[in-house]
Amino acid sequence: MTDYEKLKTQFREIGYLNRTIALLDWDHETYLPAKGVDYRADQQAFLSGMAHNRLVGAKVQELIEACESNQANLDTHEQINIREWRKDYDRSVKLPTEFVERFEKTCSLAKASWAEARRENKFEVFSNHLEQIIDLSRQKADYYGYEQSAYDALMDVYEPGCTTESLSPIFADLKKSIVDWLPEAIETTQEINDAFLKDDYPIAGQIKLNEIISRALEFDFESGRIDATTHPFCTELGPHDVRLTTRYEADDFTVSLYSVLHEAGHGLYEQGFKSEHAGTPMAEAVSLGIHESQSRLWENKVGRAPAFWNDWHSIACEHLPALKRFTPEQLTKAVNRVSPSYIRVEADEVTYDLHIILRYELEKALIAGDLHVKDIPGVWNEQFKVMFGIEVPDDAQGCLQDIHWSMGGFGYFPTYSLGNLNSAQLYASAQKALGPQLGDLQNGNYHGLLEWLRTNVHQFGKHYSPAQLMQNATGKPTQPDYHWSYLKDRFSSMG
Amino acid sequence: MTDYEKLKTQFREIGYLNRTIALLDWDHETYLPAKGVDYRADQQAFLSGMAHNRLVGAKVQELIEACESNQANLDTHEQINIREWRKDYDRSVKLPTEFVERFEKTCSLAKASWAEARRENKFEVFSNHLEQIIDLSRQKADYYGYEQSAYDALMDVYEPGCTTESLSPIFADLKKSIVDWLPEAIETTQEINDAFLKDDYPIAGQIKLNEIISRALEFDFESGRIDATTHPFCTELGPHDVRLTTRYEADDFTVSLYSVLHEAGHGLYEQGFKSEHAGTPMAEAVSLGIHESQSRLWENKVGRAPAFWNDWHSIACEHLPALKRFTPEQLTKAVNRVSPSYIRVEADEVTYDLHIILRYELEKALIAGDLHVKDIPGVWNEQFKVMFGIEVPDDAQGCLQDIHWSMGGFGYFPTYSLGNLNSAQLYASAQKALGPQLGDLQNGNYHGLLEWLRTNVHQFGKHYSPAQLMQNATGKPTQPDYHWSYLKDRFSSMG
Repeated sequence: MTDYEKLKTQFREIGYLNRTIALLDWDHETYLPAKGVDYRADQQAFLSGMAHNRLVGAKVQELIEACESNQANLDTHEQINIREWRKDYDRSVKLPTEFVERFEKTCSLAKASWAEARRENKFEVFSNHLEQIIDLSRQKADYYGYEQSAYDALMDVYEPGCTTESLSPIFADLKKSIVDWLPEAIETTQEINDAFLKDDYPIAGQIKLNEIISRALEFDFESGRIDATTHPFCTELGPHDVRLTTRYEADDFTVSLYSVLHEAGHGLYEQGFKSEHAGTPMAEAVSLGIHESQSRLWENKVGRAPAFWNDWHSIACEHLPALKRFTPEQLTKAVNRVSPSYIRVEADEVTYDLHIILRYELEKALIAGDLHVKDIPGVWNEQFKVMFGIEVPDDAQGCLQDIHWSMGGFGYFPTYSLGNLNSAQLYASAQKALGPQLGDLQNGNYHGLLEWLRTNVHQFGKHYSPAQLMQNATGKPTQPDYHWSYLKDRFSSMG
Repeated sequence: MTDYEKLKTQFREIGYLNRTIALLDWDHETYLPAKGVDYRADQQAFLSGMAHNRLVGAKVQELIEACESNQANLDTHEQINIREWRKDYDRSVKLPTEFVERFEKTCSLAKASWAEARRENKFEVFSNHLEQIIDLSRQKADYYGYEQSAYDALMDVYEPGCTTESLSPIFADLKKSIVDWLPEAIETTQEINDAFLKDDYPIAGQIKLNEIISRALEFDFESGRIDATTHPFCTELGPHDVRLTTRYEADDFTVSLYSVLHEAGHGLYEQGFKSEHAGTPMAEAVSLGIHESQSRLWENKVGRAPAFWNDWHSIACEHLPALKRFTPEQLTKAVNRVSPSYIRVEADEVTYDLHIILRYELEKALIAGDLHVKDIPGVWNEQFKVMFGIEVPDDAQGCLQDIHWSMGGFGYFPTYSLGNLNSAQLYASAQKALGPQLGDLQNGNYHGLLEWLRTNVHQFGKHYSPAQLMQNATGKPTQPDYHWSYLKDRFSSMG
């Protein structure tokens, strides 16, 4: 075996462990009996330790170095894999084991205190823990290293190459556009009453319909499946094993359907890597901002377009007879109502990015030391009023609503909006390439769109940086114009 | 930490790996997408290797030796755990790695050839592979060591302490009793037509009914669950995570119900260990023959008794309305029809043990070298005629029907009949202790019976040998009389 083959074997074995951990996690979120939780947590921690030890072991380091000093004998894909394995390795060894353990322990305690704080609506229960996490996050950024701001080092984990310098003007631009336009968007859609959708939608019928539509999207059920959970997600458990999850509510079919469309978008990306690259970074998602572009594209650009309910209304009625009460147009409007609300995960498409930008601005200031933890509630509520035009009733519906900070996930939120921007930009390019009728997706035929995404996004894995990938696919780096135009087009027609 | 605590930690970690492998396996049999199979096989092999290496590593050996030389400081339970860990360790190190790999590879090829042989009804396709497996099984027995016969060493893996010397007279006795009585048993139940049960039993209703009855048995759904599979099994994935599986047929509810009762019997045993022993042999099943006694007890002694359908008929009708066509008595008779058939897994309770005894006799002779592989079909068919009174139509329905030999599982079959014997013997003791009304289990109240089993069987884990456990619980070692009386009582009343 060459050094490259040996290194590939090392990472294939690390992959076995990581995918085993992913299965433990998937099972935890879907089928694990209630009393099995404690043992499972210990089991997951043990296996995570094993995977980490294998990654930072001397063998991996030696082989990476050997491959790096012998690049000339490697082809392009092999060189890319070496580059990415080096990144994984460096990121793991840069954090001392003692620090990783301290970080995990702090988060574990913080999560419990956050849950209590939210339940009792008392920010001060969480604030000490949050201060510790911010302090540790700064230390983490120092370990990783950065050029301009510590926050860049944190974002880089989720969105390689993304910096506040490049992102802040984009978000500022988008924020202004949306805030200025929001009253009009609300006005346009205010007559839509989405409460009328509530009815009896048997879960067996929802399951069937979601499966039929996922198949039409060409999600491969021989390489994947859909299960029920509380907070939907998508996970890859092997090169031919991509699992979507969703949540069912018997009186609201849109909850499960739109989360299936969203997770299927993630799943199609995972199913779209080239099989010859299986087990290497060439068959891994390049960033969360690109991953989220795929989920938002299928959920919103496709799933909330007027064409969607024209195509699916009659089939949907077969499985959910209560839908016979509505016309396709009524359904389209109901799933596109703009209405400022406090909770991010329930937000409409127009206000969603405002939720993200608010968090991004606070995170940047917290990591930079420009904002103190005790001032978060005041600043949150003040900014929320400015952006959304409504008063936050309490911290549980304000700065305490998300789990991310208690998990130490600073730098994660911006990738949600990057997903929206990339999604609109990629969709516009696909329309340009395939003709405008793609936008209608008549007859539920999504093959052309999927092929365009496979060709321009999926197949590359981690070949290019997210920025380069967007440049190659759309002719421009990520920018807010496409998303902004999309929002205006979509919601101006919803009146 | 004391040496004992260190050793306990080592085995707790080996347990994390083994239960992870069990989850990979459970998922393989329940939810794994079709194309995920190849990757999963590699992943399982990798993790199995890891678990094995940890067990046979120097650390475990040193700690076992240290604990053994310091027994005086350990309490009884700790001493038992040391004894059992020593057994696990010895059994694993006695087989050279090269031998284990050769055995696994041979079985892997043999399984494929067995499947082909059965499909094409050609014994000669399998016979060479079977010869190799028998040869390797003899070698395995030599590695393990034995006093009287090589077959004893193979049985000991599944049924510690069980020898041909003790088992053969029991099986001979049982065989004679059943063969002599069989014509009468057939005669008694021949008027029962079980085909009349075929009807429309919606799977949702079967799921609900199975769950209600499992709860009545006090199977704890906060520490377990039921999923669908092809070949039902029970697996323990953690101290509070016991998973049953079953198979649904839309026109025959008995398939899923009786396999749930069977697997719930296994599951109640796994849920019945003392929680303070979690992660040690004191909280592990002592043998397959005791495990099977629990499954057969709930499936047959309880589930096929007349009281069962008296108790459950009206509730069953709520979930499976087609059952309204039948009386409880008709249902009881239908699930107790005696009819010799070729396939073991479809056998009634009277003929089931004849299937096992036939295999036991052949296995013993094959391992001893008294029977040659090429002669198996002839001897099988001849013996089958003597025991069952019917002619085997072909090898696919004869000596090729079971997967066990292709998997190298010589010594496994006898535990099925040991389960029947133990089951009847334990049930008789429970009746004696709790009064005869236990036998009726009026009103679906199984608490008394379960408590008796917890007290006399479950709580002990591997404390006693299977023989000693039976002696303690019933006053006698395993013997055929109770099973024989049970069969005569049950089936004489079914006319």
